[in-house]
Amino acid sequence: MCSLPGSRKPLLRVAVTGGTHGNEMCGVYLARYWLQNPGELQRPSFSAMPVLANPAATAACRRYIDRDLNRTFTLTFLGSTATPDDPYEVKRAQELNQLLGPKGTCQAFDFILDLHNTTANTGACLISEVSQNPFNLHLCHYLQLQNPGLPCRLFQFEPPGTESYSMDSVSKNGISLELGPQPQGVLRAELFSQMRAMVASILDFIELFNQGMEFPAFEMEVYKNLGSVDFPRTTDGHLTGTVHSRLQMGKLGGGALQGWRGPAQPASVYFLETAEPNPASGPAPDTAIRGGLETPPEHPPVGFTNIQTKSPAQEEKPQPGIRREDRRRSRREVLRTGHGCMLKSEVCC
Amino acid sequence: MCSLPGSRKPLLRVAVTGGTHGNEMCGVYLARYWLQNPGELQRPSFSAMPVLANPAATAACRRYIDRDLNRTFTLTFLGSTATPDDPYEVKRAQELNQLLGPKGTCQAFDFILDLHNTTANTGACLISEVSQNPFNLHLCHYLQLQNPGLPCRLFQFEPPGTESYSMDSVSKNGISLELGPQPQGVLRAELFSQMRAMVASILDFIELFNQGMEFPAFEMEVYKNLGSVDFPRTTDGHLTGTVHSRLQMGKLGGGALQGWRGPAQPASVYFLETAEPNPASGPAPDTAIRGGLETPPEHPPVGFTNIQTKSPAQEEKPQPGIRREDRRRSRREVLRTGHGCMLKSEVCC
Repeated sequence: MCSLPGSRKPLLRVAVTGGTHGNEMCGVYLARYWLQNPGELQRPSFSAMPVLANPAATAACRRYIDRDLNRTFTLTFLGSTATPDDPYEVKRAQELNQLLGPKGTCQAFDFILDLHNTTANTGACLISEVSQNPFNLHLCHYLQLQNPGLPCRLFQFEPPGTESYSMDSVSKNGISLELGPQPQGVLRAELFSQMRAMVASILDFIELFNQGMEFPAFEMEVYKNLGSVDFPRTTDGHLTGTVHSRLQMGKLGGGALQGWRGPAQPASVYFLETAEPNPASGPAPDTAIRGGLETPPEHPPVGFTNIQTKSPAQEEKPQPGIRREDRRRSRREVLRTGHGCMLKSEVCC
Repeated sequence: MCSLPGSRKPLLRVAVTGGTHGNEMCGVYLARYWLQNPGELQRPSFSAMPVLANPAATAACRRYIDRDLNRTFTLTFLGSTATPDDPYEVKRAQELNQLLGPKGTCQAFDFILDLHNTTANTGACLISEVSQNPFNLHLCHYLQLQNPGLPCRLFQFEPPGTESYSMDSVSKNGISLELGPQPQGVLRAELFSQMRAMVASILDFIELFNQGMEFPAFEMEVYKNLGSVDFPRTTDGHLTGTVHSRLQMGKLGGGALQGWRGPAQPASVYFLETAEPNPASGPAPDTAIRGGLETPPEHPPVGFTNIQTKSPAQEEKPQPGIRREDRRRSRREVLRTGHGCMLKSEVCC
């Protein structure tokens, strides 16, 4: 019997993957380190395997070479007949599927932890593709209890299609850890240490689960994506506006764009082409973050687009220009409650 | 007669170049904007020409394609016979030399302003290659007076060889504007607006100079590079340590490295390979910033390496672990006084 997401079987085959995006440096350097020093990933009941997921992109210090590896783990790509002209990441996804999968089978690894960085001020954010996955809910809850000073949020990501495509979808269960802000291609000591400590805590949690520890039921906040709105662009695809600097200082997950003509005004859109504020064709100011996560007002915003980075100091500043209806909308739609039912592995049942 | 650096002739042929590094987005988007809207660069006595310096690297959102364009404007590269196999940036440097030079001749543009971003927390920093260039000293002084709330420092860069190689060295006089922190490939509204305003001020200063305004003598601080020390690396070139997180919070321009084994300790070096602190082979903690600028203690550090970024809030925190001798050394060696003799163009003399 497989230990699929709903299963309570111990997780004995675990992998930690870094460098899935080759310019997200904490995972790149941690994977390299663990490949030389695997002892840090050992626990009494299992030894996690370190994997440098995209070595060519890592060597080039780029997100990917031919296509995004973290969008390539679909059964279509994984099952296609290999040809010499395949994109590099398709070949690499097939190799990783052989190593850690095959996806969707009983031979697949029990758990993949995939490590990422972002320029956005996410802090620590776990991304789970499996809806209301009790193991992942408890894992995040455990990290929150272990690190009360470091906010750790759970983002429940639902792929736009019907099929998962991420690195961690190859294993029976998995999760991604996103840590920011850190510029691409840059290694910050503080984030490196944070990620290293969080991986250790995650492996500790798996060990406790494997030992049969009982984790009592609880409820927690879970974040979801309410939608994506692109930046305004020229026909060539170049931006004609960017996130307003007042928004980057605020606490709100909603958005506003600043164009490049005319004075900066809060919660307004200015477009290069028309030189007029708020043309009818522009997106509404309250929906202008691509990939952003709407959050309850008491939490700082969690955004995944490159221009969402905010420093903690910036988050403390007031945001007088944000429209009231944006705030209400954010409050209403943000929260989903995760029901973490009692969790206990079968090993001691 | 040419208006070479020491000359007082009006500057009538001026260029503003962005995207010399293709992933430094403020200059990229400003150049694109001005190419469509050149009026913003016009002044009564001249019209500055906008140039997107490295379009291929910009399209790829990379620093460069084959080699760093901003290291390619030497007479050797510019004078070499073109072949189809030339690196892209060598071809492009020769094109730009035809457009804005030829370098070292009377036909060259009078002034090039080259726009850059960095992940480091430089704030606004002007980089001048010409030693004690009175025009550039007055230009920086003017910006300081115009923008008292925005620190603007002048870094006097002396190329390691005898020959200049930067984009702005093609014209008779020139300067680079470095603005940070901003992740590569990311456009921040605040920095975009700052750079746009600073370019406007620089063109205003040139216009005042051309009109014959007299700028009285003054003295100012000028920064210089005291040396470069590489990170500790493996034989493969991978880092084995990074700048200590306590240094990124401190006000000191000196440095310390944090390795990836053992607890983080201030002003100490830890290396992966030995798992011991401060091996004899390691660099001294006080010289561990590559490309960093030593600054007087009352100023925040100005660093050009990717892992020097600090937020303003971080700079306000104490730095108890920095050794006293590092501070003293920083104090002694940092300051160079720029003598800005009275400046007035010949047009009204």
